[in-house]
Amino acid sequence: MFAPAYLDYNATTPLAPAVLDAMLPWLEGRFGNPSSRHEFGRAARRAIDEARGRVAAAVGAHPTEVIFTSGGSEANNLFLRGAAATLAPSGGAGACLAVSAIEHPCVREPARALARRGWSLAEVAVDPDGRVSRGAFRDVLARKPRIVSVMMANNETGVIQDVAAMADDARPARAWFHSDAVQAFGRIPVDFRALNGAGLHALTLSAHKLGGPKGAGALVLDKRVELEPLIQGGGQERGLRSGTENVPAIVGFGLACELAVAHRAAEAARLVALRGRLERGLAAAGAEIFGRAAERLPNTVYFSLPDLDGETLVGRLDREGYAVASGAACASAKTEPSHVLMAMAVSPVLARGAVRVSLGAGTREADVDGFLAALARTAGQLKNLSVVATME
Amino acid sequence: MFAPAYLDYNATTPLAPAVLDAMLPWLEGRFGNPSSRHEFGRAARRAIDEARGRVAAAVGAHPTEVIFTSGGSEANNLFLRGAAATLAPSGGAGACLAVSAIEHPCVREPARALARRGWSLAEVAVDPDGRVSRGAFRDVLARKPRIVSVMMANNETGVIQDVAAMADDARPARAWFHSDAVQAFGRIPVDFRALNGAGLHALTLSAHKLGGPKGAGALVLDKRVELEPLIQGGGQERGLRSGTENVPAIVGFGLACELAVAHRAAEAARLVALRGRLERGLAAAGAEIFGRAAERLPNTVYFSLPDLDGETLVGRLDREGYAVASGAACASAKTEPSHVLMAMAVSPVLARGAVRVSLGAGTREADVDGFLAALARTAGQLKNLSVVATME
Repeated sequence: MFAPAYLDYNATTPLAPAVLDAMLPWLEGRFGNPSSRHEFGRAARRAIDEARGRVAAAVGAHPTEVIFTSGGSEANNLFLRGAAATLAPSGGAGACLAVSAIEHPCVREPARALARRGWSLAEVAVDPDGRVSRGAFRDVLARKPRIVSVMMANNETGVIQDVAAMADDARPARAWFHSDAVQAFGRIPVDFRALNGAGLHALTLSAHKLGGPKGAGALVLDKRVELEPLIQGGGQERGLRSGTENVPAIVGFGLACELAVAHRAAEAARLVALRGRLERGLAAAGAEIFGRAAERLPNTVYFSLPDLDGETLVGRLDREGYAVASGAACASAKTEPSHVLMAMAVSPVLARGAVRVSLGAGTREADVDGFLAALARTAGQLKNLSVVATME
Repeated sequence: MFAPAYLDYNATTPLAPAVLDAMLPWLEGRFGNPSSRHEFGRAARRAIDEARGRVAAAVGAHPTEVIFTSGGSEANNLFLRGAAATLAPSGGAGACLAVSAIEHPCVREPARALARRGWSLAEVAVDPDGRVSRGAFRDVLARKPRIVSVMMANNETGVIQDVAAMADDARPARAWFHSDAVQAFGRIPVDFRALNGAGLHALTLSAHKLGGPKGAGALVLDKRVELEPLIQGGGQERGLRSGTENVPAIVGFGLACELAVAHRAAEAARLVALRGRLERGLAAAGAEIFGRAAERLPNTVYFSLPDLDGETLVGRLDREGYAVASGAACASAKTEPSHVLMAMAVSPVLARGAVRVSLGAGTREADVDGFLAALARTAGQLKNLSVVATME
């Protein structure tokens, strides 16, 4: 059987086998609604409490600071829209909201929607390596933003931001400071207690990026921040997120967090070695690697080969059995060059060639070597085609 | 092993075994993100398209009218808050919003939140059998509501509303008419095309109430209705609900809908017979059955035994091995009498005794008979205790 190599762990990850095992009883006989008072319900409630404890421990938070959501997009929207509704129930009236120029669409779009409601939106510039510019950030702070959101690591480049330092910078502005840690958590150390001490108020997590299931995420929230819920009703999650809890997914999320943190250091070292091998091959093939000078996630390589279209390359590589991305998965229905690369002042031509390889638990040396060989083959074919096209 | 009888299908249902089988591949090797362009992603996209077709077919809608959400609470909030934001972006300014007095909290609470934002909220009264009063409804229509939401069947009493007739009444008011069909769908015929023809614009569905998984639901929506999304980002679900799709849950939802509709008529007949057996036993024990004169879901019995506290009874029955509810599962953390029974003008004393038994696919005659015996035993013990307490 043809078994393609999956090299797109930033889009989503397979469930860790132990995580599926932990979920199965909750998909079978232990199906109660956690709000029910009988034993089926109480068992489900205990499972959620246990998972909440695991997520909290993995991220250095108190269990009561963990608000389960259906995923990272919901958690980001809950923070931004929920905080904005509390701070300015009738629209922003010119109050400032600051986000980096390289946020995921699920931060970028709600921020832009708030701008249409009267908030003044500042998009903080990044340098050519994809790091949020501290100078630009401090300039934005002079506008006294009420809400700030800067992602901990970028989904395309893997570039890590110094969120603790920015939170500290932002403290005198008394903004509510949020960070989307969806890509960072499980790949680099994330300590909510320490970040909270530095001035950060909220973190977004997602289960399916770290070996957990789709359908679960969390907003880790300093309780001094008041949010209006997105989903109101039965009052679950301290009234901040109503709706019957997705018990199997939450159970899986809890274990996935625990496993990711337990294996993180060893896995990071292994992935850095694999990434080095990949990058040496890519450099030899003449690739430009984006954000290479910045501190990056151990698993992410974002590159471009001169004169080759990223979408085309990704399609060819898929047929060769290598699953990689040409941009953020969520945004891949559109064909404009990545807003992240545009913010990094990459030329549109080079940006159109962008290919993202993101490694993970299942990645082995043979996958990297096979990928490099397939890339060389594919790139050669495409260059020949392009030469023929030019000659015609 | 002690295997309690689960008689709380309105709170949540076990997964149909075929549904879990259908979900498993998507929890194992077929884990792609539907937004990814490679084969892992395309396979997930096809699975979602297929599930969308199944949900649509089950409810008589076009696939493009189905918006997947994380569940029923989200779908209800999406409709109410999304429509309100489009109709009156700066708050209601006195515009009228009408909901029945017996809605689930996930309609009731967002409606009340909109009232705090300047909407004028009309809660339509019900008669003593729990049917929305057509006279009261017509009176409310004179206030020209912009948004109307009336549930198709009540989660506590099981009473079915004539939503088609109400939608037809509401047509001259040109309101956007929504119905929460979470409890109705799968238990009685639900035909969106016919209802849409009668003047209804949107329906809420939930997977875990009909043998599907927690974590999936849908808003079935007439495309003429413009909604502002609750969750913005990558643009999934035609831009109306961003976030990586919960592929396994959506796959399970699709099959659960198909199975529920295929088996509905036979299952309804079976449950009506079981319910009759249960109600004869309850009547013999002196129970008051709420909404008995109204058309009700085949599976639901909501009753009260004179002088007995519902919460206490439910706790005792749980220890006897029968899982039933004292009220709506989502609201069971509070101890006030049910707002549904209050709206039906049931006396607070009788309402405090309320116990809900909701039958489902796994219920057999022996469960009903065993429940009636346990209830007689438990009620006898509690009455003796109460006599002793009175004598002391």
